[in-house]
Amino acid sequence: MKAIQDYYPEELSHCYGCGSQNEHGHQIKTYWDGDETVTRFTPEPYHTAVPGFVYGGLIASLIDCHGTGSAAAATYRAEGREPGTEPLVRFVTGSLKVTYLKPTKLGPEIEIRGRVRELKERKVVIDSRVLVDGVETALGEVVAIRMPADFGKAV
Amino acid sequence: MKAIQDYYPEELSHCYGCGSQNEHGHQIKTYWDGDETVTRFTPEPYHTAVPGFVYGGLIASLIDCHGTGSAAAATYRAEGREPGTEPLVRFVTGSLKVTYLKPTKLGPEIEIRGRVRELKERKVVIDSRVLVDGVETALGEVVAIRMPADFGKAV
Repeated sequence: MKAIQDYYPEELSHCYGCGSQNEHGHQIKTYWDGDETVTRFTPEPYHTAVPGFVYGGLIASLIDCHGTGSAAAATYRAEGREPGTEPLVRFVTGSLKVTYLKPTKLGPEIEIRGRVRELKERKVVIDSRVLVDGVETALGEVVAIRMPADFGKAV
Repeated sequence: MKAIQDYYPEELSHCYGCGSQNEHGHQIKTYWDGDETVTRFTPEPYHTAVPGFVYGGLIASLIDCHGTGSAAAATYRAEGREPGTEPLVRFVTGSLKVTYLKPTKLGPEIEIRGRVRELKERKVVIDSRVLVDGVETALGEVVAIRMPADFGKAV
């Protein structure tokens, strides 16, 4: 199964968080699971905050790219189109909010589950939950803004 | 001049964002500049979002650690103490909010300037501005929560 990020245009696939072409980055992949979007990521031992726990900046980064990816996936679905069909859909982050509920244990796979709270043509709001071993450790909100169709070509 | 992070206890200096002992991390340093706190960081070429612009997750990460560092610095200052004097002060992030005003040009040094909005014994709120070449590209808000004095020893 292809992830939503696998449908990003080549010139927009260099993001440190989710670009398949960024060999230094996280290369996260986001999939549908019913009405939720899911991203899973196993942190490295050095992605630490205080010893034993995951760095909050990594959690914010994962929520960010999970949010923009979910926004693209939700837009294709709402328009009844397959991902990757023209016009290509790509979102950037307008704002990001993370609430840390408790320390996130470092080691196991991190799961991020997203839901669409609001969907408009140019603005999608994604609510996310961060889980490790089934324990909810953080909540995220991403306001995603759709890029103009010519954005990647204009830069 | 020593940065606030240089006064963090050894066992709490492994953070990916600001730990001096994390060889893989950003090792950011935060200083006072009058009533503002300042962190400067030059991103790597691979810290990209869309080509030519800085990855938003990196910006969130910098705001995060700049915020907790600023909270520690502000607490020492409010208590009329030199950083590093007992009891040692270390904050973690309760919540993080980032508003992206415009794309942040990738290449030049990023400057983050913080101000204390609220200062209580266990909770400090830091407002931050992100600038590149003098252009304000993002705003941040960190609610920082003071760690118990035995936290680092308890894990």
